[in-house]
Amino acid sequence: MQPEKLPAWKQLSRHAEIIARPENHLKHLILGDSRIKKFSAAGAGVFFDYSRQRLDSKALSLLFELAKEAEPLKKFNDMVAGRNVNNTENRAALHTAARSFAETSVFVDGRDVMPEIKAVREKIKNFTSRVLSGEITGSSGKPFKHAVVIGIGGSCLGAEFVSTAMRELALNKIDLHYLSNVDIHNFGAIAEAIDPETTLWIVISKSFTTAETMANASQARAFMQKQGLDPAGHFISVTGKGSPGDDPKAPVLESFHMFDFIGGRYSVTSAVGGVPLSLYLGYENFEEFLKGAQEMDIHAATAKPETNLPLTAALISVWNNNFLNYPVQAIIPYAAPLARLAAHIQQLNMESNGKYVDREGNFLEKNSGVIVFGEPGTNAQHSFFQLAHQGRGFPIDFIGVVTPGYPQYQNQSQGVTNHQELWSNLIAQPMALAKGKDDSVRAKYFPGNRPSSTIIINDLGPRNIGRLLSFYEARTVFEAFIWEINPFDQFGVELGKTMASKIRNTMAARNGGDDYHCEKLDILDEFYLDMLFSGKIPE
Amino acid sequence: MQPEKLPAWKQLSRHAEIIARPENHLKHLILGDSRIKKFSAAGAGVFFDYSRQRLDSKALSLLFELAKEAEPLKKFNDMVAGRNVNNTENRAALHTAARSFAETSVFVDGRDVMPEIKAVREKIKNFTSRVLSGEITGSSGKPFKHAVVIGIGGSCLGAEFVSTAMRELALNKIDLHYLSNVDIHNFGAIAEAIDPETTLWIVISKSFTTAETMANASQARAFMQKQGLDPAGHFISVTGKGSPGDDPKAPVLESFHMFDFIGGRYSVTSAVGGVPLSLYLGYENFEEFLKGAQEMDIHAATAKPETNLPLTAALISVWNNNFLNYPVQAIIPYAAPLARLAAHIQQLNMESNGKYVDREGNFLEKNSGVIVFGEPGTNAQHSFFQLAHQGRGFPIDFIGVVTPGYPQYQNQSQGVTNHQELWSNLIAQPMALAKGKDDSVRAKYFPGNRPSSTIIINDLGPRNIGRLLSFYEARTVFEAFIWEINPFDQFGVELGKTMASKIRNTMAARNGGDDYHCEKLDILDEFYLDMLFSGKIPE
Repeated sequence: MQPEKLPAWKQLSRHAEIIARPENHLKHLILGDSRIKKFSAAGAGVFFDYSRQRLDSKALSLLFELAKEAEPLKKFNDMVAGRNVNNTENRAALHTAARSFAETSVFVDGRDVMPEIKAVREKIKNFTSRVLSGEITGSSGKPFKHAVVIGIGGSCLGAEFVSTAMRELALNKIDLHYLSNVDIHNFGAIAEAIDPETTLWIVISKSFTTAETMANASQARAFMQKQGLDPAGHFISVTGKGSPGDDPKAPVLESFHMFDFIGGRYSVTSAVGGVPLSLYLGYENFEEFLKGAQEMDIHAATAKPETNLPLTAALISVWNNNFLNYPVQAIIPYAAPLARLAAHIQQLNMESNGKYVDREGNFLEKNSGVIVFGEPGTNAQHSFFQLAHQGRGFPIDFIGVVTPGYPQYQNQSQGVTNHQELWSNLIAQPMALAKGKDDSVRAKYFPGNRPSSTIIINDLGPRNIGRLLSFYEARTVFEAFIWEINPFDQFGVELGKTMASKIRNTMAARNGGDDYHCEKLDILDEFYLDMLFSGKIPE
Repeated sequence: MQPEKLPAWKQLSRHAEIIARPENHLKHLILGDSRIKKFSAAGAGVFFDYSRQRLDSKALSLLFELAKEAEPLKKFNDMVAGRNVNNTENRAALHTAARSFAETSVFVDGRDVMPEIKAVREKIKNFTSRVLSGEITGSSGKPFKHAVVIGIGGSCLGAEFVSTAMRELALNKIDLHYLSNVDIHNFGAIAEAIDPETTLWIVISKSFTTAETMANASQARAFMQKQGLDPAGHFISVTGKGSPGDDPKAPVLESFHMFDFIGGRYSVTSAVGGVPLSLYLGYENFEEFLKGAQEMDIHAATAKPETNLPLTAALISVWNNNFLNYPVQAIIPYAAPLARLAAHIQQLNMESNGKYVDREGNFLEKNSGVIVFGEPGTNAQHSFFQLAHQGRGFPIDFIGVVTPGYPQYQNQSQGVTNHQELWSNLIAQPMALAKGKDDSVRAKYFPGNRPSSTIIINDLGPRNIGRLLSFYEARTVFEAFIWEINPFDQFGVELGKTMASKIRNTMAARNGGDDYHCEKLDILDEFYLDMLFSGKIPE
């Protein structure tokens, strides 16, 4: 059922007009002792404050009414149970199973998938501990000191986010590098930073045909051979069962399976994240991270709407997007280690929900996904917050951490520690954005009424990073379930790939490759091909 | 004069309705041999293709008409000449002078500022070459091997962008680190990565009162003292004349002046960028970078509108923002070293043009700035391009580089080098976005009509990075000049600072600081203060 046809949707449309009135400016809405009590919730180790969203009690109750009518909770539980929720690709979507430690079976097409998921986890534990202990070495017998993830998009961003977030917990036995971009500069910089003899290359691709990943893997193999090192002793793969990366005729040190019921952007709790993160942090930290994610999964599946954090957050996304017409969502963690959170959620949310059709193939009447972006605070305050305060407003997720790391540095400036200084800003910004300020000098006038949520975790330990990840994953799929779109496919990336492939073939033919021929291209395509082959821009 | 009142603006409004018609879908507009000729320009080493913007000849000529009526070129030349273009702060805006090597004088309040600008450049050249030669050492006599920039926003992002872009040219004598965020994790990670004896701290703040920078500098001084090292031998400052960082009673190894006529976000070509970049790349590379910027400055100031790259780009920004109603601009460099370009332009553009009032203090009737974001391609294709193709469209700047670095890696995959693979995508994406594709399967339908520009430079040498930087700076101020706003002030950041200051004082009082007292705060502020001091989130 299209959500626009639900009674609550229509009432929300009318109510949005009321919220737009001056008397419902946020500076009025936030007044009163009970605001924070009523407009916040805690669960699975996360505190979620939406008191500075442009919501009154009526709007909130209508949103929960929408949650009843659109049945996102039922759909979430269908997902967890292994039903065919990815209908266009005729698949389950079981990232939640990847971090399940329950004894419960999860059936896909009549087969319990939990044993193979647990077997992969066991294999990760075993392999990475043997690498870390020095039992498994490179081809010349030296222990591994570098690991290079060769993967792009969902095969990189999740691990990059988590490894950056937990850097303080790194074992410092293995340095982690990310080779995503097919850009030779990416490869060149890594080649300069590593020592080939002690380097393990982790090639991650479900199909093992991703053009960028295959080009980089090929580049890396040639590089190792040039150093006189046998690639077979330095490469591992994380790939789908039976893919070209899982071929005994192309030997690798070890191969880990990923499953077609876990999409790239949801895969950091599978072997995709598990292998690099366990090498970097140890398997125990990876498992703690999984357990945090599992906690939030259970919360998302079982808490009733009014206390369900990701569901409430998803309802607010829908409200901000479709009723208040904000096209953008910023994510601003007041925690430097969460520097790559926004990039990860950008993929997770935009690739999931940037869709043109609903599950039935009807063109959408409204916009689904929004543009997600962000940088850490306070950096963002000194960058683009000018526009947030005085330009067009947009909703922001402020994220805070109660207890920081590095307890040895307790120097105070202006009477406070650095962490307290950080929090004074984390506390001040949502309020300044909400309230605004009158000023007789027009350039110093702040319109206010800019909505935000504040999300707090206790520390940056693996459990909380897992909870935070699962919060955003659940929020993303809840949004989709309300919009009745499929958050698990990504046909929108195909057209560019097809066109690039024709151009690549033409380049290969121009390079003199016998197996290729020039294809019929657009005039503009030819123009740029000529530019590249000429080696310079037109004058 | 408000631009809405200009005749061309009104005609553009009417013409935007015509462009919105199906027959003016981009797939039709781009047809014909002469499209690229008519809708592109080259100048100052940059090729700018706007053939896939949603423009026809009429729209383009109306935009150039707007450029006549709004007089951005005249205002640009006023800026370059040192006039009082930053009217709310009663200042000139002379980033262009920072990279001028002309003999011409530039007068501010009757005084030629060029001699002092050139003297600072000379001082940078002299000091950094003496550090690099080992003549100037740390307090224990060892040559410097690490430099930590302590600065935030405009005192960091520019140098971060440029040093990342030119990493291949690094001298590898001095590792560069950026300590921006007051977050102790930022400090802790750097403290672990450096060797204090060989570390030079570069404190960058015009006022030398920026809370984050002062807290980090204080943390760094305490850290050095704890190692038994005299901070005076390890600190340099880049600051305004007469600031607390320019006080002989607080000795530093060296101090470099920044000028109040160069704002933070425009300051990378001043000592703010000059000191760290010269240490990292050598002064010669920094000077080449300046010369590239100067070339584009001259182009921007003198080329007539029809062949003026940044002015044309600014007109297109206005068209996309105010007439086609796109609230967002993405920047996607197909060049991994340009990974921090989007973050830099995000600040430059959003802080400059995210304004609520025009130069006269009238509230704007339209939106000025847009949200700027981006990640490198092809990474972005595997992240958020799903939404770009099938969700809400937004304009994109695609950026390409004809000749890459690392010529030693020429391995081919599928008949092409990595760089050719990269270009096959760079060529394909703008076309896929523009043309779209019909499909009987609804989930595979691409609406197309997504606008983009393609900007190409020959290589990532310092000259081209300077040109690219100046292109975006000039585009930003041209946009402002058309909107009749002041792109050089940033009063929108003040309210949050004031509020944070009250909260900081209250924290300091709670810490037991005698010089502080608890201030009257909002209930929500108190709620979060209690949370921080309690050490945990509410259950």
